[in-house]
Amino acid sequence: MQLPSSLLENAVNEFSRLPGIGKKTALRLVLHLLKQDVSEVLQFGDTISRMRQDIKFCQRCLNISDADICSICANSSRNQHLICVVENIRDVIAIESTQQYNGTYHVLGGIISPLDGVGPDQLSIEPLISRIQKEETEELMFALNPNIQGDTTIYYIQKKIQQFSCKVTTIARGIAFGGELEYADEMTLARSITNRLPIGQYVK
Amino acid sequence: MQLPSSLLENAVNEFSRLPGIGKKTALRLVLHLLKQDVSEVLQFGDTISRMRQDIKFCQRCLNISDADICSICANSSRNQHLICVVENIRDVIAIESTQQYNGTYHVLGGIISPLDGVGPDQLSIEPLISRIQKEETEELMFALNPNIQGDTTIYYIQKKIQQFSCKVTTIARGIAFGGELEYADEMTLARSITNRLPIGQYVK
Ligand SMILES: [Zn+2]
Ligand SMILES: [Zn+2]
Repeated sequence: MQLPSSLLENAVNEFSRLPGIGKKTALRLVLHLLKQDVSEVLQFGDTISRMRQDIKFCQRCLNISDADICSICANSSRNQHLICVVENIRDVIAIESTQQYNGTYHVLGGIISPLDGVGPDQLSIEPLISRIQKEETEELMFALNPNIQGDTTIYYIQKKIQQFSCKVTTIARGIAFGGELEYADEMTLARSITNRLPIGQYVK
Repeated sequence: MQLPSSLLENAVNEFSRLPGIGKKTALRLVLHLLKQDVSEVLQFGDTISRMRQDIKFCQRCLNISDADICSICANSSRNQHLICVVENIRDVIAIESTQQYNGTYHVLGGIISPLDGVGPDQLSIEPLISRIQKEETEELMFALNPNIQGDTTIYYIQKKIQQFSCKVTTIARGIAFGGELEYADEMTLARSITNRLPIGQYVK
């Protein structure tokens, strides 16, 4: 694709580096922006830049946050002795959207996957264990994608915290094994939170 | 969708205002950017902003340009007495990609469509007529989408320039009537340029 302007070409190249955006789609997006007011496009650019520059990760749960401690961790009307363990921030957003969960989170930042070279040390598992000990967590609820890596991660963490008097549960398998948590409809996800199981019934 | 950060939320809102980008896709794009280096994301924002702020439209053909006159109009090895009339910039890009056309362009900025309230005055038709007169254009080649509005636009312009000794042609109907020019494959588009017809054989 030959473009008549290097300014246009640079913008198209930037968009087409985003996942799932090809050159034709990128061009369409850029030509759309070209039809908008200058002020609106400057705001677009500025909002994206500021987001990346100023965003924080909660020091307690590693969720995305505008402050050092996220709004969920800072909310005293939520059960601060219940931790929901998730793989990433998208899962936090998916579970929050169900409006069925009133505890806190812990974002692992991935999942144990030896084939992909991801071991426990690359995930925020140590901080989770310290946190359970320090905060005297009453219940740890796993909300990981139901697949082999999810089970491996649950098994690993469960072994590490056997010494604490912390109940360990997992969300019910409303989601088909091998499915993706973040794509589950809210109803299914809400039901699987309500029907969560003691971990003993789940992995041994 | 409840988001844990207003910075994140603003960025998602900006992306989801783009055509064809829903909230879920917007979130995916923003979370992707969040994983990139700060400098890369600042460059993304800056490139988009600068594109909108600094881009120009060629004073002669209304194509997108980095300068007052676009690189096509400024290129003396192209036939400056041949004008290809197109609806928009995407069509210029599509035709340039065929590498079969060696003349100049004129971007109408739309097409006559009474049902959509678009009349000749909202398009750059007067500038085209002045240009044909002033430049002693030898051939005007229409490359409009083959549909009723395209035909109406050709008919209208053709009437207006009957007084000049300018040959009027249209690209061949390699593209099915009702089809979209910018989605034609390069081969079809190239062939329909090579086989262009005198306008008399096309509309009467
Ligand atoms: Zn937090
Ligand atoms: Zn030009």
